[in-house]
Amino acid sequence: MSLTRVQRAAQVAGRSMAGRNTPFIYNEWYVVALSREIDRELMARTVLDRQLVLFRKEDGTPVALDNRCGHRSFPLSRSALEGDTVVCGYHGLRYDENGQCVEVPSQCSCAGISIRSYPLHQQGPVVWIWMGEPEEADISKIPAMPMLEEGWVTSEDYMPLKASYVYLHENLLDLTHLSFLHAKTFGTPDYAKADFDTDIGDGRFLLKRYVVPTRLPPVWAKPTGLEGKDAARITTSDFVSPALHIVHAQFYDISLDESERPDQRIKTAHIPTPETGTSTHYFVVHGRNFALEENEVTDFMHEQLMAAFDEDVVGLEAQEELLAARHEDDDFFEISLSADAASVAMRRYLKRRAEDEAVVREAKKKPVSVKPAAASA
Amino acid sequence: MSLTRVQRAAQVAGRSMAGRNTPFIYNEWYVVALSREIDRELMARTVLDRQLVLFRKEDGTPVALDNRCGHRSFPLSRSALEGDTVVCGYHGLRYDENGQCVEVPSQCSCAGISIRSYPLHQQGPVVWIWMGEPEEADISKIPAMPMLEEGWVTSEDYMPLKASYVYLHENLLDLTHLSFLHAKTFGTPDYAKADFDTDIGDGRFLLKRYVVPTRLPPVWAKPTGLEGKDAARITTSDFVSPALHIVHAQFYDISLDESERPDQRIKTAHIPTPETGTSTHYFVVHGRNFALEENEVTDFMHEQLMAAFDEDVVGLEAQEELLAARHEDDDFFEISLSADAASVAMRRYLKRRAEDEAVVREAKKKPVSVKPAAASA
Amino acid sequence: MSLTRVQRAAQVAGRSMAGRNTPFIYNEWYVVALSREIDRELMARTVLDRQLVLFRKEDGTPVALDNRCGHRSFPLSRSALEGDTVVCGYHGLRYDENGQCVEVPSQCSCAGISIRSYPLHQQGPVVWIWMGEPEEADISKIPAMPMLEEGWVTSEDYMPLKASYVYLHENLLDLTHLSFLHAKTFGTPDYAKADFDTDIGDGRFLLKRYVVPTRLPPVWAKPTGLEGKDAARITTSDFVSPALHIVHAQFYDISLDESERPDQRIKTAHIPTPETGTSTHYFVVHGRNFALEENEVTDFMHEQLMAAFDEDVVGLEAQEELLAARHEDDDFFEISLSADAASVAMRRYLKRRAEDEAVVREAKKKPVSVKPAAASA
Repeated sequence: MSLTRVQRAAQVAGRSMAGRNTPFIYNEWYVVALSREIDRELMARTVLDRQLVLFRKEDGTPVALDNRCGHRSFPLSRSALEGDTVVCGYHGLRYDENGQCVEVPSQCSCAGISIRSYPLHQQGPVVWIWMGEPEEADISKIPAMPMLEEGWVTSEDYMPLKASYVYLHENLLDLTHLSFLHAKTFGTPDYAKADFDTDIGDGRFLLKRYVVPTRLPPVWAKPTGLEGKDAARITTSDFVSPALHIVHAQFYDISLDESERPDQRIKTAHIPTPETGTSTHYFVVHGRNFALEENEVTDFMHEQLMAAFDEDVVGLEAQEELLAARHEDDDFFEISLSADAASVAMRRYLKRRAEDEAVVREAKKKPVSVKPAAASA
Repeated sequence: MSLTRVQRAAQVAGRSMAGRNTPFIYNEWYVVALSREIDRELMARTVLDRQLVLFRKEDGTPVALDNRCGHRSFPLSRSALEGDTVVCGYHGLRYDENGQCVEVPSQCSCAGISIRSYPLHQQGPVVWIWMGEPEEADISKIPAMPMLEEGWVTSEDYMPLKASYVYLHENLLDLTHLSFLHAKTFGTPDYAKADFDTDIGDGRFLLKRYVVPTRLPPVWAKPTGLEGKDAARITTSDFVSPALHIVHAQFYDISLDESERPDQRIKTAHIPTPETGTSTHYFVVHGRNFALEENEVTDFMHEQLMAAFDEDVVGLEAQEELLAARHEDDDFFEISLSADAASVAMRRYLKRRAEDEAVVREAKKKPVSVKPAAASA
Repeated sequence: MSLTRVQRAAQVAGRSMAGRNTPFIYNEWYVVALSREIDRELMARTVLDRQLVLFRKEDGTPVALDNRCGHRSFPLSRSALEGDTVVCGYHGLRYDENGQCVEVPSQCSCAGISIRSYPLHQQGPVVWIWMGEPEEADISKIPAMPMLEEGWVTSEDYMPLKASYVYLHENLLDLTHLSFLHAKTFGTPDYAKADFDTDIGDGRFLLKRYVVPTRLPPVWAKPTGLEGKDAARITTSDFVSPALHIVHAQFYDISLDESERPDQRIKTAHIPTPETGTSTHYFVVHGRNFALEENEVTDFMHEQLMAAFDEDVVGLEAQEELLAARHEDDDFFEISLSADAASVAMRRYLKRRAEDEAVVREAKKKPVSVKPAAASA
């Protein structure tokens, strides 16, 4: 099919943007599970297309191992947890928390058998995992989650998403979709046309949107007491890392002087962990810095927000279904708008990171044999 | 596996015949939907592996656009129809009937954004679509449907078919299968052995079968009053285009002189529109030139015919399931019979058409750079 | 991912072992069905990825043909059995038991049409099929099933298994898994640590395990009268052919002198017939040489054993699911234990057989044109 000039330009530009076929970025900390998901039951979870088994030791420390027994590939998630060891349900090989085999029932020696274990770090309601180069694991690189600091109250949740994590980041980085995809929940018609600033850094991408004046939807109006008032709703989408996206919002009555305004803010961590190329573990940690003692506010906000985020899941899955059903790729293009500047930069960044890593991986596989240069005559 | 001489010859002959792996023919008018299927609800339909959205304008004109929003690939079929425009359910881009974007809520300009629209033409109970080269769209090339002319009464229907359109054409072009696949509905044992003429043209393939004398099955005997009589049943399978197959039949009491016979004919348009390589939208428009005012005859025939055509669907899907499950192709062959002459010619024609188009498409993609010949010394 | 030295060595060793991607071995007799499965109903079954139709002639002889009509690939299993012939449900081609077409309703001649028929041989409760080179079919090569001899009583069953037949053989050849996978049925904790002998021949692989003294599980203790006694349980896993694995076991009270011990043995034929690369028809014929007249013993053992073998099915399917979901193969390895020596030799044998056959098949496809060597100057 022949494309228009605009379509053709979009096609060319799109080639440098990450999408559903882009390789994973391994050298990042990702959230592997909510803390409360991991317990003394062996649990299977796939992250970055790798099958893991998760459990907690008797002292509560979380552990992640490859789910595949090194002997004959039996899933350890269908095996037995005995003390701090996992005993394979097929031939009884016993692994410790480091993936080291410590017993083979049918012989004396364990013969150096081991499977990979992954560094984990629990940070309040979530557990982070490092699946990149082992020597580069560094917990100081785990991104901060400001809603977990003092003075905030949080709730958390998990949704499976049958779509690439790339498009969830994109969804979050341009909230003009609130007026359409979320028209029935927390979007308002003025959202899409509001002013915005974009801040594009090296691996950090922000978009700040000023919806002023506006009327707040119930999820924000009720807890803040701003129902029926002309309010400001100032929202910042903040891509912190491939594994973390934070949406910051503040609300106030615009008839009040700046000094009179109560400090009412929310911060929502949207945490997209790739499961496969086209599916994502979508974790959410939502926090606010007001009405800290009111559990019914927590419950109300949580319920309202999850209903809205479910609209994103439905929408992103509809987009993924359409993309998955396509057969021709000659005529694929995505035309970007001015509101997409941060998103486009973010997708280029994800692609560059993924490709850079792939180059390093390939280079490690094929050791270059360097020949000394022949002396020239 | 080693093949017999006959099997080997069939294998070689089969290579020039279209099948489930043959590319589509784009430069044809296809039926995209029954007229009554398209209304003021946005409707998704895949044709020639391309995802479309269909709707009617306020004045009733049908419209077909690519179902993919040009911005971020959201399905327009899951969006909103406002007046004669479609508003994307994700970020609110608004498209007119020509696929031109006429509003982007988050910015002033529409920046030349557009998606493809497809010429449609409503012809009574069906709507045709042109998905080929835009400059070659010509409604005068839409094949005639004689049962839509005056003096005929029709009914229409639609069945999804999980098999290639090629095999539906083949099914229709050799009706010897009536004695077997349709033994319980409108087939009779004498059908397979009846005399026939074949007429092979350039893109037109006919097979006329004379079942004389015979006893008619209820679907024909009841409305014609020929129950219990020795009758003639003369049927012509007529491949009109890759998108249209018409079966013409006439019936008469063979004890009557030619001049005394009432003119009782039926014409059934079988309309196989490829959805994917292995699935087909199977539309039917059935007409008769007698008992024009009798609605109960229409209902009776329609019900009986659809039950018979459903046997074709079941049979073709069984054939497709078998073909889909095959793993070796070294030993695939289809031995053709004398009754298949028209069908074989038809399948060669479909393959040639598809390949010729593919050559043109490839040539357009890779512009040949011609180098001036170097002057020879 | 970087591997340890042990993992890397295992990876290299694994390359010569058959697995789920290894081609089939055709030149073997396989069990196609239990004798009681084949009757006067046409039955579809896929073996070695080939779709077959099975039935019995009026005289009771079993027949296997390709399930694909040679004309237009209609499944004969959805056709009609008339006497000893199959009449295609589409256009009525009639095939005899040799796959020879003996009637084409729409024409006089059958034009040499045929489909492949396969030699079958019924051996008591099972029917064997030869799908290899036709000239090599030789029923004297059908492996013996000693539990079908006089003095034994048997029962048989069938389970579909969604895993490669290779891993079922492997499962059977190392019964240390009884202590884990079968802990709740017929395994005991001492099984995995018991002494064993390995006997590796050319295409015959045995592993004999001595669990002495032990307490027998109910399936063996009850029928032998050894409940609550210190008993010997001596089991031999015997890979007879790619199509047959026999497990022999004997049981006795160790307080008795050898001369006093009743001869109480069981022999179970485990018959893994590949359906596709990752699915298997798992037939079982179980026999014992004692309590021959006691039907309730037969029923009891059969029920207990099938419950245990179902644990193998569940376990092998869990292993297959894990393997099927893997995306990277760079880091695949299977570390073998000393108890795997017979199994590793067996998997190498299966791979070599499969590859040798593939070479012969390819050679037959491409006739080598030998050029006379040019005379050197």
